[in-house]
Amino acid sequence: MFDWVDAAAADREAAGLTRRLRSRTAEDDVLDLASNDYLGLTRHPAVTGAAAEAAQRWGGGSTGSRLVTGTTGAHTELERELAEFCGYEAALVFSSGYTANLAVLTALAGPDTLIVSDAHNHASLIDGCRLAKGQVARAAHCDPRSVRAALADRTQPRALVVTDSVFSVDGNAAPLAQHLAAAREFGAALVLDDAHGLGVLGPGGAGAGAAAGIAGQPDVVATATLSKSLGSQGGAVLGPERVIRHLISAARTFIFDTGLNPAAVGAALGALRLLRAEPGRAADALRVARELSTRLAEFGLDTTAPDGAVVSVRADDPEHAVRWAAACRDEGLAVGCFRPPSVPDGVPRLRLTARADLTDDQIAFAVGVVVKTR
Amino acid sequence: MFDWVDAAAADREAAGLTRRLRSRTAEDDVLDLASNDYLGLTRHPAVTGAAAEAAQRWGGGSTGSRLVTGTTGAHTELERELAEFCGYEAALVFSSGYTANLAVLTALAGPDTLIVSDAHNHASLIDGCRLAKGQVARAAHCDPRSVRAALADRTQPRALVVTDSVFSVDGNAAPLAQHLAAAREFGAALVLDDAHGLGVLGPGGAGAGAAAGIAGQPDVVATATLSKSLGSQGGAVLGPERVIRHLISAARTFIFDTGLNPAAVGAALGALRLLRAEPGRAADALRVARELSTRLAEFGLDTTAPDGAVVSVRADDPEHAVRWAAACRDEGLAVGCFRPPSVPDGVPRLRLTARADLTDDQIAFAVGVVVKTR
Repeated sequence: MFDWVDAAAADREAAGLTRRLRSRTAEDDVLDLASNDYLGLTRHPAVTGAAAEAAQRWGGGSTGSRLVTGTTGAHTELERELAEFCGYEAALVFSSGYTANLAVLTALAGPDTLIVSDAHNHASLIDGCRLAKGQVARAAHCDPRSVRAALADRTQPRALVVTDSVFSVDGNAAPLAQHLAAAREFGAALVLDDAHGLGVLGPGGAGAGAAAGIAGQPDVVATATLSKSLGSQGGAVLGPERVIRHLISAARTFIFDTGLNPAAVGAALGALRLLRAEPGRAADALRVARELSTRLAEFGLDTTAPDGAVVSVRADDPEHAVRWAAACRDEGLAVGCFRPPSVPDGVPRLRLTARADLTDDQIAFAVGVVVKTR
Repeated sequence: MFDWVDAAAADREAAGLTRRLRSRTAEDDVLDLASNDYLGLTRHPAVTGAAAEAAQRWGGGSTGSRLVTGTTGAHTELERELAEFCGYEAALVFSSGYTANLAVLTALAGPDTLIVSDAHNHASLIDGCRLAKGQVARAAHCDPRSVRAALADRTQPRALVVTDSVFSVDGNAAPLAQHLAAAREFGAALVLDDAHGLGVLGPGGAGAGAAAGIAGQPDVVATATLSKSLGSQGGAVLGPERVIRHLISAARTFIFDTGLNPAAVGAALGALRLLRAEPGRAADALRVARELSTRLAEFGLDTTAPDGAVVSVRADDPEHAVRWAAACRDEGLAVGCFRPPSVPDGVPRLRLTARADLTDDQIAFAVGVVVKTR
């Protein structure tokens, strides 16, 4: 039955698209610019301590669906503090950003809804569009005119405009205020995935919605991850209270999934509190990103000017990207290696995370290694 | 834009289908038969200690996709030990059972594949069927003849038979060996979701695949959760090594999701090792289930004879189920209250978890409360 799997593997290998797992050790001594740990908080003692304490207090798991037994007092605290920090009425925590995105799209976009989805949206938004019963129109990347055209043409009574706030591969930002203006012109709502904006953009890292001045609006829903700037795991939906209440009763990935485990809740809460106490971390991440990008460009590399904490550098082809990333690792630098289907345009890239806690020496080292191994 | 949400809420309220979150405290003093903590391990010190230690050692999160930075040495250890325990060649861990099921179905059932799916399958399998590009045929519940008929009629070159091993609402088991025989007759493979079988069925709790003597077969793939018997969070896929390798390169909910957080990996590993050291726990859960079911039936309640650690009791209608569950809680007993869409046949039920660690007194108390509050 599964012989076809070997044939598919051979095709992938020939195209340079085989993926392999590399297990890392706890004491890795490479400089890690491959993770999404934008603020360098994952291993901060306040975060790991909060995770450990939550596990000891509440247990190793949350024991069931959030609706049955899976909502601990810690979940409720995290939801309240996260909503307040990001500027929304209410929040709901999921076991991953992936399931949060599936929830929003399936519960808010029924057959009477057109979903206008940015062409470069994350896989979880694309899968959410596929699972939702609404029809989907693809809008040109970061193009409010294209959004407007799709909304104008629609036959459905309702519509959602859906976009990443910061795109994960190049770190470029969506024109959120313009998208919302376009949505309003046609009676639609805006859904933004702030996975890469939370902790980096907006006042003190309150996210792309706050940065654009649209957080908390009655027609704006945001999703976020707890696994990037907040150094933990999980996803969240932020928005009007009535929308959050709707998800509780209608979102299948909420109703039928075990609640986020207590340690992850604790870690996210620990990181959030740290970020509120030290709001400069967000600006540090942006400063490092611009520094990395400017210096790589000075050496003639094909890099993006980032709006978030991500810098990408284009490679020639998938094999080159794999060789390049491996050469960086041999020199002591871990970088992301993005190939199809993880890039929106087929162009493979190295992806560097601009961690807020990088020193000038580390930035110089990283630039030196990437340039030398090109 | 979101006014329709209020109308939907009013409809749900009128039908008795509103869901509300109840946040629990760490020191709840009710007897908890609502969770999926079948072996009573979630708060076992060996499990919470392993979770805390993993968070301290590896961090609050796993920092990225399993393919980029998210595979720690602990993930690899858990996968090896879980595969060995359950009797499969290899395993792959996901952030939830939900995303594990989406992975298997989308990566193994392309347009050339017919998926034959049991009518009572879990929401995550149903969503996996919807997301997969293969066509879906619904088979009558636990009916190998219906499976055979769907396979015989197919036009697609490939086929998967997909079923829960133990159905979550009534605790009844699928005829796995007969399903596999049917699948083989027509060149199909079997996918079983062992969320409610792992830790309860088979030698020492090795799962429904082991119990049926089909674990590790070249045409059998199992999924499992780490959030029930193993007291943690997350999901896993178990199967032939080539299938696991295929998922690593092809499953979107693996490639584009952050790896399971270290504390959850630690908790699951702690629970697994405990279960190996004390294999009697699985049989205890089954014994408690039968005891609960027999005694409830003696009082004339409409209950199932469970094959797993779940006992359900039918209620008259959704409002009755909610009132009944609330009355149990007032008496100090937490039970699950299952209403549409969480029941396969529209009949609301109370659901009791047969925890392996229940004492005779606790069983008598639980039966007394359920009977008295009917």
